[in-house]
Formats: sequence, C-alpha cells, structure tokens
Amino acid sequence: MSYETDIKDALAAYKAGKLTDDEIVEKFHELSITDLGYAQLDHDRSLRRGFPEVVYCEGKSLQQAAEILQVLAARHGNVLGTRASRELYDIVKTRLPDAKYFDQARLIVLEKEPLAKDPDHKIAVITAGTSDVPIAEEAAITAELMGNEVIRIYDVGVAGIHRLLGKVEEIRSANLIVVIAGMEGALASVVGGLVDKPVIAVPTSVGYGANFKGLSALLGMLNSCSAGVAVVNIDNGFGAGRMASIINHLR
Amino acid sequence: MSYETDIKDALAAYKAGKLTDDEIVEKFHELSITDLGYAQLDHDRSLRRGFPEVVYCEGKSLQQAAEILQVLAARHGNVLGTRASRELYDIVKTRLPDAKYFDQARLIVLEKEPLAKDPDHKIAVITAGTSDVPIAEEAAITAELMGNEVIRIYDVGVAGIHRLLGKVEEIRSANLIVVIAGMEGALASVVGGLVDKPVIAVPTSVGYGANFKGLSALLGMLNSCSAGVAVVNIDNGFGAGRMASIINHLR
Amino acid sequence: MSYETDIKDALAAYKAGKLTDDEIVEKFHELSITDLGYAQLDHDRSLRRGFPEVVYCEGKSLQQAAEILQVLAARHGNVLGTRASRELYDIVKTRLPDAKYFDQARLIVLEKEPLAKDPDHKIAVITAGTSDVPIAEEAAITAELMGNEVIRIYDVGVAGIHRLLGKVEEIRSANLIVVIAGMEGALASVVGGLVDKPVIAVPTSVGYGANFKGLSALLGMLNSCSAGVAVVNIDNGFGAGRMASIINHLR
Amino acid sequence: MSYETDIKDALAAYKAGKLTDDEIVEKFHELSITDLGYAQLDHDRSLRRGFPEVVYCEGKSLQQAAEILQVLAARHGNVLGTRASRELYDIVKTRLPDAKYFDQARLIVLEKEPLAKDPDHKIAVITAGTSDVPIAEEAAITAELMGNEVIRIYDVGVAGIHRLLGKVEEIRSANLIVVIAGMEGALASVVGGLVDKPVIAVPTSVGYGANFKGLSALLGMLNSCSAGVAVVNIDNGFGAGRMASIINHLR
Amino acid sequence: MSYETDIKDALAAYKAGKLTDDEIVEKFHELSITDLGYAQLDHDRSLRRGFPEVVYCEGKSLQQAAEILQVLAARHGNVLGTRASRELYDIVKTRLPDAKYFDQARLIVLEKEPLAKDPDHKIAVITAGTSDVPIAEEAAITAELMGNEVIRIYDVGVAGIHRLLGKVEEIRSANLIVVIAGMEGALASVVGGLVDKPVIAVPTSVGYGANFKGLSALLGMLNSCSAGVAVVNIDNGFGAGRMASIINHLR
Amino acid sequence: MSYETDIKDALAAYKAGKLTDDEIVEKFHELSITDLGYAQLDHDRSLRRGFPEVVYCEGKSLQQAAEILQVLAARHGNVLGTRASRELYDIVKTRLPDAKYFDQARLIVLEKEPLAKDPDHKIAVITAGTSDVPIAEEAAITAELMGNEVIRIYDVGVAGIHRLLGKVEEIRSANLIVVIAGMEGALASVVGGLVDKPVIAVPTSVGYGANFKGLSALLGMLNSCSAGVAVVNIDNGFGAGRMASIINHLR
Amino acid sequence: MSYETDIKDALAAYKAGKLTDDEIVEKFHELSITDLGYAQLDHDRSLRRGFPEVVYCEGKSLQQAAEILQVLAARHGNVLGTRASRELYDIVKTRLPDAKYFDQARLIVLEKEPLAKDPDHKIAVITAGTSDVPIAEEAAITAELMGNEVIRIYDVGVAGIHRLLGKVEEIRSANLIVVIAGMEGALASVVGGLVDKPVIAVPTSVGYGANFKGLSALLGMLNSCSAGVAVVNIDNGFGAGRMASIINHLR
Amino acid sequence: MSYETDIKDALAAYKAGKLTDDEIVEKFHELSITDLGYAQLDHDRSLRRGFPEVVYCEGKSLQQAAEILQVLAARHGNVLGTRASRELYDIVKTRLPDAKYFDQARLIVLEKEPLAKDPDHKIAVITAGTSDVPIAEEAAITAELMGNEVIRIYDVGVAGIHRLLGKVEEIRSANLIVVIAGMEGALASVVGGLVDKPVIAVPTSVGYGANFKGLSALLGMLNSCSAGVAVVNIDNGFGAGRMASIINHLR
Repeated sequence: MSYETDIKDALAAYKAGKLTDDEIVEKFHELSITDLGYAQLDHDRSLRRGFPEVVYCEGKSLQQAAEILQVLAARHGNVLGTRASRELYDIVKTRLPDAKYFDQARLIVLEKEPLAKDPDHKIAVITAGTSDVPIAEEAAITAELMGNEVIRIYDVGVAGIHRLLGKVEEIRSANLIVVIAGMEGALASVVGGLVDKPVIAVPTSVGYGANFKGLSALLGMLNSCSAGVAVVNIDNGFGAGRMASIINHLR
Repeated sequence: MSYETDIKDALAAYKAGKLTDDEIVEKFHELSITDLGYAQLDHDRSLRRGFPEVVYCEGKSLQQAAEILQVLAARHGNVLGTRASRELYDIVKTRLPDAKYFDQARLIVLEKEPLAKDPDHKIAVITAGTSDVPIAEEAAITAELMGNEVIRIYDVGVAGIHRLLGKVEEIRSANLIVVIAGMEGALASVVGGLVDKPVIAVPTSVGYGANFKGLSALLGMLNSCSAGVAVVNIDNGFGAGRMASIINHLR
Repeated sequence: MSYETDIKDALAAYKAGKLTDDEIVEKFHELSITDLGYAQLDHDRSLRRGFPEVVYCEGKSLQQAAEILQVLAARHGNVLGTRASRELYDIVKTRLPDAKYFDQARLIVLEKEPLAKDPDHKIAVITAGTSDVPIAEEAAITAELMGNEVIRIYDVGVAGIHRLLGKVEEIRSANLIVVIAGMEGALASVVGGLVDKPVIAVPTSVGYGANFKGLSALLGMLNSCSAGVAVVNIDNGFGAGRMASIINHLR
Repeated sequence: MSYETDIKDALAAYKAGKLTDDEIVEKFHELSITDLGYAQLDHDRSLRRGFPEVVYCEGKSLQQAAEILQVLAARHGNVLGTRASRELYDIVKTRLPDAKYFDQARLIVLEKEPLAKDPDHKIAVITAGTSDVPIAEEAAITAELMGNEVIRIYDVGVAGIHRLLGKVEEIRSANLIVVIAGMEGALASVVGGLVDKPVIAVPTSVGYGANFKGLSALLGMLNSCSAGVAVVNIDNGFGAGRMASIINHLR
Repeated sequence: MSYETDIKDALAAYKAGKLTDDEIVEKFHELSITDLGYAQLDHDRSLRRGFPEVVYCEGKSLQQAAEILQVLAARHGNVLGTRASRELYDIVKTRLPDAKYFDQARLIVLEKEPLAKDPDHKIAVITAGTSDVPIAEEAAITAELMGNEVIRIYDVGVAGIHRLLGKVEEIRSANLIVVIAGMEGALASVVGGLVDKPVIAVPTSVGYGANFKGLSALLGMLNSCSAGVAVVNIDNGFGAGRMASIINHLR
Repeated sequence: MSYETDIKDALAAYKAGKLTDDEIVEKFHELSITDLGYAQLDHDRSLRRGFPEVVYCEGKSLQQAAEILQVLAARHGNVLGTRASRELYDIVKTRLPDAKYFDQARLIVLEKEPLAKDPDHKIAVITAGTSDVPIAEEAAITAELMGNEVIRIYDVGVAGIHRLLGKVEEIRSANLIVVIAGMEGALASVVGGLVDKPVIAVPTSVGYGANFKGLSALLGMLNSCSAGVAVVNIDNGFGAGRMASIINHLR
Repeated sequence: MSYETDIKDALAAYKAGKLTDDEIVEKFHELSITDLGYAQLDHDRSLRRGFPEVVYCEGKSLQQAAEILQVLAARHGNVLGTRASRELYDIVKTRLPDAKYFDQARLIVLEKEPLAKDPDHKIAVITAGTSDVPIAEEAAITAELMGNEVIRIYDVGVAGIHRLLGKVEEIRSANLIVVIAGMEGALASVVGGLVDKPVIAVPTSVGYGANFKGLSALLGMLNSCSAGVAVVNIDNGFGAGRMASIINHLR
Repeated sequence: MSYETDIKDALAAYKAGKLTDDEIVEKFHELSITDLGYAQLDHDRSLRRGFPEVVYCEGKSLQQAAEILQVLAARHGNVLGTRASRELYDIVKTRLPDAKYFDQARLIVLEKEPLAKDPDHKIAVITAGTSDVPIAEEAAITAELMGNEVIRIYDVGVAGIHRLLGKVEEIRSANLIVVIAGMEGALASVVGGLVDKPVIAVPTSVGYGANFKGLSALLGMLNSCSAGVAVVNIDNGFGAGRMASIINHLR
C-alpha cells in the first residue's frame, strides 16, 4: 500500500470521526518521515518534487542502503539507487525481486508504474567518447525513469567534428541536451553553439594526467564561450538526468 | 534597415531575377558575417538563438567594443554589451544615443523593440546578500531584455533562514529560479530543496579569504545536495540570465 | 596503579626522607614521560588537559600503537585510540581485555572510570547525511568518553530543510552543536543561523567529483555566512568532539 | 526608540484592544524586518543571537552601507560595521555623530549602551607578529563590544618561543584564547598544547610567496596537532571575536 | 659592424699572424659573450638558433632593458624585445631610432635585414575571440620577423562553429597552425581534428571567474582529445611564434 | 580487404553504372563511419591524418576495446591501442593473432604494412631517468609505427649534466626531439638551449611528494626558459610520438 | 651604548653589590625584551643567533617599522630591515642618518661594525636571469652584512648552458651556493649536479602565466633530481642569505 | 676490484706504455659510465660528490633496480637503494649477500667500508610524531652511511612543548638539525627559533584530510618565521640526510 493511499485513508478516517485532531497530526508526521536513526526518509518529497527520494548508495553500509531502498519501495511505486555496487544489488534483490541493476550506470531501479513520456519533448544525451558512456547511461536511465524519452548519441567528440555535424538534425529534434565529456570538455561549447536549446554539461573524470580527475573538463565547461550551458558536478550523471527531467516537464 | 529585412529584400530580388545564383550566394555571405578583422560578427546567430550576438566588452579596446556594438545595432533591433565600463558607455552613446547604461550590472542596453513577456512564466532572481546584487542585476536585466518577467528577491541568505522561508510562496510562483550567492553558496541547496523548479546557480566572488575569488561558492554549488541545480561560471550573471531565458521559453 | 597515585607515593616517600632531592627529581621525570624511543608518552598532559593522551593510530605500526595504548592504560584510567583498525583492536584486546571497539567510528576505547555528565550541558551532534554518520560517531563517542551527554540528530541536510526545522527545539536544548557535513557543507551555516550557541563544523570527504576529498565542504564552512561557526579538519570527528568537550566544561 | 520598546508597545496596545489580531501580526512582521530592496534587515536576530545584525561593509556601495547602519542604529542600541573604509565612516558620522572608527581594525562602532563584562571570563587575543595586529584588533574590539574583557598579547610568535613562554600565566588566566598568525600558523598549535582552554585560530594573509594569501596558515591551523583548536576564515578577525564571545557567555 | 664580421676579422688577423693563439682565444670569448654584470649576452646563440637573443623586458629595469637591446643591436641585424611597455620604447627609440613598437603585441622590433619568407610554408595564427588578438599579434609578428609568412584568422571560436568551418580551406593551406584561445580553449581540439598539420596551442588568460587566469584554457588544451596539439605557456604568444618558426624551417 | 580498396571498388561500380547516385552516397557513409552504438569509428580520419584512428583503451570495457580494435583492423592495415592492459591483449590476440604487445609502453600494435622511414629525419627520444622509460617507449614505438626512425637516449637527466653533454652530437643529428622527464622537468629547458630543433616535452608523474602527480614537471616545462619547447599532457607518450611524427613529415 | 655593554655593566654592578638579586633579575628582563605593545623586541636573539633581530617591514605601518628599527639600532651595532620601501627609508634616515638603502634589494642597512669575512669561505649567489637580480641582491647583501664574502654570478640560466659551464670553476671555489631562479627553476638542479657543495635554492615569482606567482619554480626546486639542494620560500632572498651565512659559519 | 683501482691501473698501464693515447681515453670513458640502455651509471659522481650514485628504486622494474645495484656494488664499496620494497631486497640479497634492508626506512644498504664519523659534528634528527619515524630513519641511516654521527630524538612535537624543551641541550649539541614533521610542520619553526644551527626541514604526508598529502606541512615549513630553515621535498628523508651530510662535511 503506497504512501499516497495511506494519507488518503487517514484523511477519510478523520472525516469519518475515527481520528481526533491530535491523532491525525500525529499520523501525518509518522507517515511523512520514517526515522531509521541513521537516516530520515522524507516521503513528502515525492509529492513536492515529483519523484521519490533517490538513494545515493556510496558511503552508506550495504545494510543501510538496502534497508532504505526497501522502506522507500514499501511506500512509493518507483525507487532509484545511484552509485550502487553489484554487491549491494545482490542484497537488494532478495528483498525487492523486481529491482533491476544497470552495470555501467551503477543504478538500482525499481519501476512499478512507468511514468508517461511525451514524444514531443525528448532529451538528447551526447558523449564525447566511449569512456564517457557509463556516466551517460546514468543520466539517460535516470531521465527515462522520471518520464522522458531519451535520444542517445555517443562518441561524437570534437576531434572529429564531422561526426557531430552529421548528427545535428537529430540533436536539434530534442527539447534539451545533456552533454557528457571528459578531457577538455569542448563538446559542450560546440553543441551550445549549434543549437538553441539548453545544454546541461557533465564533466567526467576520464583522461590523462593533467585532467586532474575531471578538473580540466569542469573548468572548460564552466568557461564555455557558448551561452545556454550550465554545469553539474564531475561524473554526476544522475544530477544531469534529474535536472534535465525537471526542465523538460516545464510547460 | 535590419538584417532580417535585408535578407528578405535579397530573396525578393533573386525571385524577380535581379540577382544571379552567384550573386545571391555572395549576398548571403556578406549579410551573415561582418568581418572587422579583429572580429567576425555573426548575424545568423540572431535567428538561430533568438537574440543578436551579445558583446563581452572586457578585454576588447574601447574602440573595438564601440564599433562592434554599432555594427550590430545597425543590423539588429536589440543589442547587449556586458562587462561594460562607464568609459565605454560614454563613447557608445555618442554613436547610439538610445543606449542605456546600468551601473551596478555594468550593462549597455539598446532595446528598440522590447520582446513580449509571459506573466505566467516568471523568473525569480534571488541573492544571498546585498553584495551579490550587482551580479543579480546583470542576470535580471539580461532576462528581461530577452523577454522574461523577473521577480527580484535580494538578501535572503541562509544565515537568517526565516527571511527566506517568508518568501517561499513568491519563489514558488516563478517558473524557474536563478540563485546568486558568494561565500559558501548554500542558498542554492536550500532553495533547490524547497521548490520543484530548476535552479540556475551563480557563484560570486564575494567574501573573505578562503573564498579564493569565488571558488568556495563554486564548489559548494557544484556539490549541492539538492537535485535540480546546475551552475554557471563565477560572477557570470549574464550567462545565468541567458540560460534562464532559454529554458523559460521552452514549451 | 595509576599515574596520580604514583606521584603522590613519591611525594610521601620524599617527605618521609626516603628519597633525596636528586632522587625525587629523577622520579618525577621518569613518571611524567615514558620514553619508548619512537614515542614520548606525556603523562602530565592528563592533568593539564583533563584527559590522558589520545593515540592517533594511523601511520603507526600495529605493534607501536598497541604498546602505546597499553602503557597509557597502565598509568591512566581511560584511554582512547583513534583511526584504529579492527586488526589493531584484535591485538589490543589480548592485552587490554576491557577495551571496546566502535566499528563505524574506528575508535578503541578503554573506559575504566566513566566521567560524570551534566544533563544541563548537552552537546548536539548533527549530520547532513547518512554517509557522514561514521565521523559523527567518532565525535559523539569522544565527547561522551570525555564526560558529556550527547544528542544525536542524523540525516537532516538542507536539501529537505523541514526535516531540520522539525528538530530545532531539540537542537536549541543543547549547550553547543557539532555539525558534520560533506558536499557543500551548507548545514553549518543554516544551523549557525538558527541557534545562538557555538557551532563546531566538521567537513567530510563525502561526495561526488568536485568535492575534491572534502575541500568543497571545508571551504564552504570556512566561508559560512553565519557568525558563531568554527571549523576543524576534514573528517576530524575526534577533534570536534574534543573541542566541544573543552568548551562544554567551561563555566 | 528601540526595537524592543516598539514590540512591547505593540503588545500593550493589543492587550488593550487597540490592535486587532490581524493588525498585531502585521505589526510584528513590519517590526521584525526592514526591507530596503537590496537588503532585508532582520531585527529579531538581535534577540535570538544577543547582538544586532553586524554589517559587512565591503562589496556594498557607500550609500547602501551607510543607510543600513543608520536603520539599525535607529532600532538597536549598538551597531557594528566591519571591513569599513574611512571614506564610509566620513559619510556615516554625518548621520550617526557618536559612531567611532578604528583605523587598523577597519571597524565602525556605535556603542550606546556598553554591555557588562565579567572580569572572571576574559578572552586572550594573541598574535604571532606585528603584521597580524590589525586582524587582532578587529577580533578584540568585536569581543569587547559584545561584552567581554580582552587581554592583548601581541608579537609572541614561535620563532622566539621564550617570549611566549614568559606570557603563559597571563594566557592561562583567560577563559579562552584567540590566536592570530600568518606564515605557518604554528602559534595555534603551540598555544593549544600549553593551555587547557579552547583556542579559536585565525589564519592571516601575512607573509612571503608560498603563503598563497593565507593558505599556508589556514592549512597549518586546520592540521594542528593540538586538540582544542578550531579555525575561522583567513583574516576573519570579526568572526573569531564573535565566536569567542558566544563561547565566553556560555555558563 | 656586426658580430659575424667581427669574428671573421679576428680569424683573418690570426691567419695573418697578427694575433697569437692566446689572443685569438681571448678575442673569441670577448666576442661571444657581453658581460653587463646583471646580464650575460650570448651572441653565439644567434648562430646556434638562427636569430639573436630575444629580450624578455618585463622584470628588468627600463635602463637594463634598453641597454641590453642596444648592445644586441650593435652586434646583430635584428633584435626583438617582448613584453615591452611604451615607456621602455620611448627610451629605446632615442638610442635605436629605427626600432618600431607594436602596441597590442607589446613588442619592440628592430628589423635591419628582413629574412626571406617562403610562400609555400605559411603559418596560420587563429584566435577564438577578439580579446585574444594581442597575444595573437605577439605570435604573428614574432613569426614574421623570424622569416615566415603569416595568415591571420581572428574571432572564429567554437561557439559559432560555422565561422570556423568557412575558413577551413584557408587554414589547411598553411604548413602549421598556432591556435590562441582563452576560456575553455576548445578551439585547439576542433582545429586539431580538422587539419593534418601540427597545432601549437596558446592558452590565454581571457575570461570570467573560474578561468583562474588561464588555467581553464591551459588544462583544456593539454587534455585535447585531438592528436597533433602541443601547448606553450599561458599568454606566451612569443613562444608560440618562435616554436612555429623553428618547425616551419625544418625541411 | 582494406577501407581504401572498398572505396575504390565503390567508385568503380558507380562509374560502371552498377550503383545509383543514392546508393553511392549511402555506401560512402556506411564505409566512412562504423557505428557500434558506444563508439563511432571514423575511417576517413585515416586519410585525413595519415594513420588510422588510435584507440585509447583505458576507460573502455575489455569487450568494447577489443571489438573496436578488431573493426579497425578489418578496415585498415595498421592499428594502435594505447594504455592497453595485458588482460586486454590476451583477448585481442585471439582475434588478431598478429598483434604484438609492448609491456612497458602498454601498447597493442598491429603492423601489417610498415611505413617507410626516412633516415635523414630522425626523432630523438630522451629521458631524464630510468623511471621515465615506459612513457618514452610509448612515444618511441608510436613514432616508429607512424614511419619515423627513432634514436633512444635514456637516463641523461641534468643532475649529471656531462652525461647529457656527451650525447649532444647524437641529439643534434635528429630532426626533432622528444624530451621525457618527471620531477622538475629541467631536461627540456637544457636540451632546448643546446639544439636548434623543436622540442616536444612530456612531463611524467614520476617523483616524490611535491611532484603532485606530474604537476611540477608540467609547470616546469611550460615555463621553460628555452624557446622552441612545447608541451603535451602528463605521461602522454603517445601524444608526443604522434605530434613528433606529424612535424617530422612536414617538408 | 650597546646591549652587550648594558648587560656587562649590570653584571659588574651586581658583583659590586650595587644591585640586589631581585634587581638584577628585573634588569635582565628589562634589557632582554623591549615591549612596544605591538611588538616584543627580543635582544637576546642577537646573542643566540649571532645577529640582531631582522625587521620584516612589509605589513607594518611606517611608524611601527621606523620605531622598531630605531630601538634595535640603539641597542645593537648592526640592523637590517627587509622588504622596505623607499618611503620608509625616508623616515628612517631622519632618525638613523647612517642607514643605507638598497633599491633593488629593498633593504635598509645600518652597519656600524662590519663583521669579519673569511676569504676561504665564500658564498656564490647565482641567478638564472636578469629579472632575478633583485632577489639575488637581497640574498647577497644579507650574507655580506652577516660576515661573508659573496661572489655574484648573474644571468647564467640553463637555456644557454655554456654560459654556466664557463663559470663552473668560479662556482666551485665557493663554500656553498645560493641559486635564484624563476620560471622552471632548473638552474638549481644543474648546479647541484655540477658541484659537491650545498645549494640553497630560491624560487622567484618571475615569469609568464603558468608560473603561478613562483609555484612552478618552487615545485621544480623541491623536486630537484640533484641531492644537496634545499629550498626557501618564493622570493625569499633574505632567508637564503641568512641560511647560507649560518651554514658558512659552521666549522 | 673497485672503480678507483681500475682507474689507477689504467693510468699505470698508460705510463708504462701499454696503452696508447686513444686507448686510455676510450678506457676512461668505459670506466666512467656504464650504459645499461635504460640507465647511464655515472661512476665519476662518486668522486665528484663523495659517495656513489644512489638508486631511487621506485618506478624502476625489480630487474632494473637489482641490476643497477649490482653494477654499482661491483665498482664501488658502498651502495644505497632508496624507496626499496622488501620484494626487491629479496632479489638483491641473492646477488649481494651482504646487503642489509631497513624496513621502516625502505632502504637497501651495502656498506663495505664504513666511513669515519666525527663525534664533534653530529646531526640531530628530530620528529614531531611517531608516524614521522620511517622518514626520519631514512634520513638518519642515509646520514650515517655517509659518515655522520646521528642523534635521534623522536615524538617531540609542539603540542607538548615541554617534551621538546627538555631536549634543547641535546639538540644544541649537534652541528645541524633535520626536522621531520607532518600536519602543520610547526616543529621546524620552533626548533629554528631555539638553536643557532641550520635546520633542514622535511614535510611528511602524515595527517588528516586538509593535510592534502603533505601540502600543509610543506607550506608551513616554507613559510617558517624562523630564519635558518630550508626545506626538501615531502617525505624525502634521503634528500634531507644527504643534504645534512654535505653541510656537515664543510670545514
């Protein structure tokens, strides 16, 4: 039984006089936050932001991460775990058999009720190289789960600009673009100059020495000479997918 | 006579047989780029991205900047010069008497044909402190010039959280939010957690020592624990206003 | 037999004429510092600073760390080893069977005579996320061992500000607050703005790419726009707990 | 007429039936925040944190800073402006003739009702060198204004350790210590090892090349091998004085 | 009378028996290095590297710089002073009336015997923006002075990629390319992918905040995903022009 | 059957009327790019830049890297995989039995048709120390594979300058020089001062603490006081070899 | 009357019974430290370290610096002020007419009793370029004032290695060497490899962009591949001269 | 048979007419450098710098390192390998059975003819903490091997300043001091202020988060407020021992 149903039941009981004023307030609080001691699960966020709390799994113990995912799954239809190891997934699937694991993207996904996708508002996810694909998949799957159609265009970095130019029409067909690139991150600027849609840029930590774990791409993208480019954290595919989805649902 | 009219005239002349094939191609090229030697002014961008080329005035000589603004003004209705000194403005206004100067924002604006603004799609521009206001004005005026209604909410930093909480309804009435903050940049995260709209964050170089010219706010915003936050360059009010406008015109 | 007893015995013997002037001076020196060659154990510090020397175990060999803990335990009632591995603990407990190990906090604790705790002077330990809990436990257990009552409030980061607001009364009931946060470290500023008590902020190395191993949270906290915030080293839960205890015992 | 009086008057009027429910709520809001457009002055903070809002003058225009100081002075007894230029002071004193200016510390102070100082709870402010004195004065005057007795001990850096050792008794007589040092910042560690009181450390930007504008002292203090040391931002004398005052008023 | 003539005269005198063995050795040393105390002018380098010693004027006093230029001019045909102020030039031209000054490029040039230029081996100098032109002129004039024909193509940054694509044939006609760009430095990668000639990349310190004085462009260019790109120091137009000339004279 | 043959066959078929206009265009596109989904293999680059696409293997899965190498090998004569693990090679050699593996250089090489080498245009590859040899081998083998004779001179760092001086004639016999050095990277400057040929400098991440993973050598080389030095990324032996080969083939 | 005389007088008076025990202790303290409030002048250091306290003038007000110099001059024979402006000197010479000013080195020197210099223990001060000369003069004059003969060898950087090689015998004649270089700092390594004497290296902030205010030379020197090199702070000519003098007086 | 003997034999043979001029020159070259391809072993350095070439083992393959050590051992009496793993030692001792291994210091030492040590010229090696001991041992053993008596004083960091003060006489008895400290590196400044001997400071990478792998201690030591302090690379115990030995042998 989902969180939304619980709340409606409580309101019905209150209307029917089965709950006092104090009891309904207490009930609301109880329903809105699950306190696990080491975590405060915030169910209202699902309503406020359109999707249940996402679990960043890295840095949590396997037991903590698994328990949080389970509690959220019991309350909400869809759940997303990011930066999840396969080891965690092996524990999670004993509790949530329908959960799927995406290896490259390191995502655990439980999608009970897929959200509708508007084919006239696509998100293009573009990478400079093959090594950027895992981050791109994190962004693409996140966006899909949050109800967006995604066009994937991978390995079209600026070293061979005609590969990119051959895809311009396809890119322009999207409502907004997520550009994922390591090294110098130049792809964001070039794409930003070619289209009149917003570009969400994700620097990746891919590259040789003076890349300094993504710093070169990060600075490159922040200094993009194209307007219409904004940047999320290094390797933060999830954040880009999430941001893209929020923008894509504006009307 | 504007650029758009010139193109239409050329096409009419061609249809009427007054221009050969070679002549019309030559005419197009001539019309689309003005080559000043030190600058290639790209008039097509006006069509592609919905607004004429913006002139970043810093780093150009006064003469160069003034000439570029004049050439663009001759071709397009509206022109914007960013990072402009008052000294430059004094030169520009002898050539473009209708140009206005915004002191705090350091913008030169020539707005012949104000663009329509949709009151149901406002952009909120929020600052953490009073010292962030110049960057905020750069963002707000840019957005207004590009056809957006702007709500200004200044000095609501997180050190006095109830000031911000008192403005939540007003903030939520906007279609998207630009958050401008120096120091630790925490305002972006807090706003990102309070609303379900996209947040464009602008770190500013305002602050004491370990701010390192905006680095602290930049890193803080990139690491925002709230989803739905993307970042532009330090002190880049123009870039934020431009990005916000592009997103705000998506339907 | 503890260090304090030894000193009193020596003084008694001296008074009774059983020790010459030279012998008592020699005795004092011998008692106050144990020289292990690779380490000078400073027993006087226990008196000067109110608690025996704490052993930072990382960077010492297992044998060195174990021997130091044992020597201190022989002299003092309570002993604390920080950054201790379970491997070290396995060695230590063969020598000090009463020693306890705290997994998350990586602390070895020998608490023979628990210090009194004043319920009117509590320390609140607050984290932004679940991943910050190990550092929080290091701070909390340190503070408890040094004679303080601790309130733990975990996972109340600013992305969901109402979780924090729901705890304000509880936080205000404390005498001072330790705030532990990674990513942008914004929680310190927000808490600093909500309470009129000192805030000790601990940046953690938790987070995505541009976190740069805690640098983002460190700079964020140093640039806090709230007065009443001071910062300790990245991931230094022990230091925060120790500092909090020293302040909390001022009258 | 001060802010506190205004509030009491309003409450009396309400009790006397001269104000309706709606009117008193409106009155409260009006009294608690003065909205200047570019600044939201938060008068409640005076009650919550024990002293009126402090104005960080740098980055504000002279007119803005002067107006804010004047509004606060009209509401509250005591007002403090930090990072204030003499140029600003020249404007301020035409509006607030009783305001004083401290050159080295760059503070504007209006102290109508000096707060009581407890001679048993002194704050020691210590510098490593003469060049650190301006930051020290910012800390010391702030602490005095907020109701603390201050001991000043300047130029006792570790290069001549006996100068410091000769002051140990005086330092130990204080309830807590503010240590201000540039270069390597070693004074904080040495003082932290000599006393059992909390040390608030302020790195300064004083020094030769690889000081990197205070970074060396900042890192040095954060890595202090002494427990009981916490750090504020580079050159942030005000922050240290404020933090010290908050701690010093705990009982 | 030039250095080369002096040496030949000495050899003739030696052959004619007018100089002893010791005298000729002494003469050679005297001719090859002029010792000014604060500078050792190395005339042999002219022979070894094909052009007289270039004088980096910044950091030298006006008198020192002027004297060095004068001594070199007396010995060699052509002389180049880089990072030269107009103030220095005003002194120099009183001593070397034929010297010219290039304002943007900040070069002092004395070109007595222009070197031959091979029209089949041109160097293209390309900039991303107008603000990069001063550095480009430093590179271009250096290359011309060292005997190279230069093609200048300015303001063709990647934000408007078609401006660059329109110049590809012209760029490909060169033997090698110097690419000068600030901000993210993406132009180097794009050009490197379009041509099969070596690219010497010069990052410039042009740009907004997170440019960090050229660091973003530097890292971007070092991480270029295109092979055939090597990088010189930030704003080092001279170095690029010199390197390009050395490569361009290989056969 | 190689890519070049395929293209010629297609053209012959077209001429012979066996392919329509549409079919030949379709055929060209099909031949020029192989789309593997995660990678766009660009066969034209082979023509444009004189050698097939090189595969940067790090960051790709073993399966991806192996498949890309295989596809390229089927089209082109020679193939190069950089940053390749032995584990990858074990997979590759089952598909391409003629492929060789270079352990130190971490290169996979398939060389079906060795390119001609001009003995009058040698490339010298020089290292400062023995620890730099793996990067040097990456550069040297790359250059050889691309048709250049290579002189290897290893371990001639500036700490024993006479070792280098003893090799000057040999170095001068080369057409250009690749200098590979870690630590302070001084070798590039010294070599740059000794020869009149271009120097491509490769900083390596070899060294003690303040080397900061190659930063010291990188900065050292960028700041080289010798003209005629340009720099590639840290540890980028391949890039240096490739750049050297491009320059070495200019005539 | 100098400090040393004062102490001897006091001791004589004490012996003669003119001073009590308490009086002599009081006298000693009074003589050993002059407390100016903002500075503690430590006269004993003169005895302990062989030369009076040196005054770092930057960061002190003109009045403070002048007063400190005057007090020290009254007590000691020789006084040294570093980083002194000419403006300060103009004040100082009204009080100390014998004081001299060294423009380049920015030193104020009062040398009443020149110390003896041992011609068999010379210090060589070497620079890479002319721009490094001011720092070199700071080192050389410091060393001379402290009783050392100095050999100056300027502008022998590694870009023209034969200039350096021509000076090797002269360099080897010194007892130790101070090497001063900006840019990549390579001169320290080369000199370190050529001589068997200790090298004190001073990085300077001389250079182009990626020099980052001396960081490149600093890291280069710290990573020197030559043993026998130790480093002082960027631009710290005084520190190097002082260190060299201390070493040079060891026997 | 050692290198020195070989040279003398060759000279004798030459004198006796058994070697021609050409043969003796060839012989000398052959004797002075052993070319292993990947390494140039420079036997003359033994004479020039007073000790055979030291082998930095990290970054070399086990086979390379072992072979180099063996070749040097065959030529010279004493050999030193730094940063050596036990795994390497296991190989080395099969070839050089007399070689010893020092675990903490990671040194391989072959000492056939111990050098004489002068008891009047001791080197003190001091550490701040126990974790710094491995680096200290690297310095101490290096210095001993090079003919110096060493006093070890470990774990006397400034947090307990009286531990250090109790050792001052012992420290002053040395001719020079090596100070090894991590964290803030303050010990170097304090020791530098207490003694009038040169201090060689070694920053270590020991410490918590904002230590940034030794950067905090490095900057701290470079900014030491004490004169007479020079710094070597982070964790470079060998370099410090070597530098100390060179200085200690000056007379």
